[in-house]
Amino acid sequence: MSSDPTLDTLTSELDRAHVFHSWSAQGSLAPLVIAGGAGTRVWDHSGRTYLDFSSQLVNVNIGHQHPAVVAGIVAQAELLTTIAPSTANFTRGQAAERIAGLAPDGFEKVFFTNGGADANENAIRMARLVTGRDKVISRYRSYHGNTGAAIVATGDWRRIPNEFARGHVHVFGPYLYRSEFWATTPEEESARALHHLERVIQAEGPSTVAAILLESIPGTAGVMVPPPGYLAGVREICDRYDIVLILDEVMAGFGRTGRWFAFEDFDVRPDLITFAKGVNSGYVPLGGVIISDAIASQFDERVFPGGLTYSGHPLATAAAVATIDAMKAEGIVENARRIGEDSIAPRLAELAEKHAAIGEVRGTGVFWAMELVADRATREPLPAATMGAIKKELLARGLLPFVQDNRIHVVPPCIVTDDEVAEAFAAYDEVLTLVS
Amino acid sequence: MSSDPTLDTLTSELDRAHVFHSWSAQGSLAPLVIAGGAGTRVWDHSGRTYLDFSSQLVNVNIGHQHPAVVAGIVAQAELLTTIAPSTANFTRGQAAERIAGLAPDGFEKVFFTNGGADANENAIRMARLVTGRDKVISRYRSYHGNTGAAIVATGDWRRIPNEFARGHVHVFGPYLYRSEFWATTPEEESARALHHLERVIQAEGPSTVAAILLESIPGTAGVMVPPPGYLAGVREICDRYDIVLILDEVMAGFGRTGRWFAFEDFDVRPDLITFAKGVNSGYVPLGGVIISDAIASQFDERVFPGGLTYSGHPLATAAAVATIDAMKAEGIVENARRIGEDSIAPRLAELAEKHAAIGEVRGTGVFWAMELVADRATREPLPAATMGAIKKELLARGLLPFVQDNRIHVVPPCIVTDDEVAEAFAAYDEVLTLVS
Ligand SMILES: Cc1ncc(COP(=O)(O)O)c(C=O)c1O
Ligand SMILES: Cc1ncc(COP(=O)(O)O)c(C=O)c1O
Repeated sequence: MSSDPTLDTLTSELDRAHVFHSWSAQGSLAPLVIAGGAGTRVWDHSGRTYLDFSSQLVNVNIGHQHPAVVAGIVAQAELLTTIAPSTANFTRGQAAERIAGLAPDGFEKVFFTNGGADANENAIRMARLVTGRDKVISRYRSYHGNTGAAIVATGDWRRIPNEFARGHVHVFGPYLYRSEFWATTPEEESARALHHLERVIQAEGPSTVAAILLESIPGTAGVMVPPPGYLAGVREICDRYDIVLILDEVMAGFGRTGRWFAFEDFDVRPDLITFAKGVNSGYVPLGGVIISDAIASQFDERVFPGGLTYSGHPLATAAAVATIDAMKAEGIVENARRIGEDSIAPRLAELAEKHAAIGEVRGTGVFWAMELVADRATREPLPAATMGAIKKELLARGLLPFVQDNRIHVVPPCIVTDDEVAEAFAAYDEVLTLVS
Repeated sequence: MSSDPTLDTLTSELDRAHVFHSWSAQGSLAPLVIAGGAGTRVWDHSGRTYLDFSSQLVNVNIGHQHPAVVAGIVAQAELLTTIAPSTANFTRGQAAERIAGLAPDGFEKVFFTNGGADANENAIRMARLVTGRDKVISRYRSYHGNTGAAIVATGDWRRIPNEFARGHVHVFGPYLYRSEFWATTPEEESARALHHLERVIQAEGPSTVAAILLESIPGTAGVMVPPPGYLAGVREICDRYDIVLILDEVMAGFGRTGRWFAFEDFDVRPDLITFAKGVNSGYVPLGGVIISDAIASQFDERVFPGGLTYSGHPLATAAAVATIDAMKAEGIVENARRIGEDSIAPRLAELAEKHAAIGEVRGTGVFWAMELVADRATREPLPAATMGAIKKELLARGLLPFVQDNRIHVVPPCIVTDDEVAEAFAAYDEVLTLVS
């Protein structure tokens, strides 16, 4: 890490002149310059470092610049960066084998994409084709990607200005802290959310519903760990009406919850699993669908009408092979689980005890949210201006946070240590003291 | 290149067990194994080499494993593979500057995506937002990507099973060889195609049309170079009705036609330019939209509601910087133009003279199609079985062809030499002799 502040200025200038940023008004942006990183830290050209408790967009599960993954990319770059999807390639085959090997029995095939949105696109396509039905049910408070079908399946504000596709129906999911079902216990929330889901299916006409698409644990929407029985109940409903169950593991998968897949903690078996992000920590763009044999075999004789230029890209799949091998060899998934239980959970409980602004904490592994409120009784969210101030103060203390709506998501890389958790919580504590 | 035939077998086994392929029935696939490549050649693990006259999916414009691009990827891999879109990053800024610098004046900003489909998704999104209108007009015989909006904008069979979005209208474009307008000259075809387009707009209601989305030269559909006046006429119609003109340069751009952008050969100025493939030859997945200042500035105060995890990915943009610099330094775009004029065009004319099966040849740069017919008078396409046999025979002669419907597309990397063109045409000649 060398210090060259003029490069920070130049980077900011180039950025403001030529880079159009996502999900933003362009006029008043002042993006943080990032020049490099290693493990849980990133830095700019001047040598300012940040402890990354965002994992960027909750994708750098293995941490920044893991040497084994970088080495895997370099080796493949020198061999063959890219090849058409219609060929067979050893690295691609190895990645597919490894990924299928992490899924339950009866999932043998993987369809590769570039990211999470097109993973969901293709899962939806498969569900529509095998059922011959059109409607996709997903939940409000969800995010599935920004392309034409995936964005309309999305359940937050990003759907509204993009609602050009039809056949998407949204339901409320379980979220006891802000229950839509007047429930007072997790069990009641679960049962009522299932009742609501089934009533919507009946009202829409079960024979019109191709798929239920759910994040195993809704992520960007607030890390809402499903209450007991919910996902198992969804599976039952899918079986009752012959509906395909797609679990979106794009954010929750590949170690984030301290499991390879978040759904492993629940009594549920999906028909299609979508993934991206953690599969190779985003070192090279990659996503995909893990396909149950029952669905895959329906395309043995019948053409699957979906595809993209970079499906099964050698460089991207090389990064996945290296990532999965390193995560196994170094016990990185287990570390995420242990850190969640021993280090993050107790510290969050302590923080919630101390600060009235914390309305609820929830999560698992390295996948947590603190919900900040102006008033614990009414649960009124902390206003946007205060959240902005919190973000600024955390950055000033060298912590790169993930701030979303009225929440701080505590989402470090899966390799995070106890000491780093302690360091982050010292910053959270200071800043929460400041704003209260 | 070492020889290890057992790796070919293993690769085929892994592929058949675990890789789900695009646009195919999975049952009877036997994909060609590709282990490595350099320049215009690729090879398997046994040492069988192929001259690549497909550029894979017409994306490897700079050829396989260009050392400068590999070096650029390796250097960035060692520095910083990935960072969130909300940050500023030097490499990303450099790529945006270089790409905007290739576009006409008045295009300063670039929005990055992972590939071509999401480039078109976001261009469509911009057009809909700035016009407040919904409909997108594109042509039959076109391909714009496989996601929910882009696939419905697509004009070939791949649209039909994916037609879940509304607001897409298709028109016929100019294609004199199989005119939809009873035209007999290029000028007539052009004028009538424009009349048809304008009549459809009037019938749909001009105030409902957000965008016209066209490949500058439709690629997969058959390399239909637009006749004189067509694209200029489309521009006029867009101006008349305040419609956004999106030119899709995903396949045609970055050297393929012997220009940085295919539209440079026509008297037309788009409002949005979409790109992918050639921008970094697909060494790392990358696409995007080059945005005219008039459209970009509309998002200065207003939020642009689109995005994806890997927008402006450092590794992908590093590959773009290295690719553009190498293409400039080595005159690769100029080579494509010269080879097209001096080497491919005359050889195609000769071939067409000799073989009655060639109904028409058309193209520019390293972007050509031979249309094969059973009968020159009726123009009846050569049947699929014969096309399959042609593909097999070309492969047996060490030529990797691009075969689509009843056509052979002659689409080598832009770095191709005269000798390699001669080698390919010897194979085309032999095989066409064989089948006639
Ligand atoms: C659960 C989930 N699904 C899908 C996506 C979309 O992935 P991408 O941004 O790679 O298209 C995201 C992105 O944040 C996500 O969190
Ligand atoms: C003209 C054109 N547009 C868009 C696309 C889609 O690009 P991608 O496959 O990267 O999504 C393609 C792919 O072949 C194309 O040729």
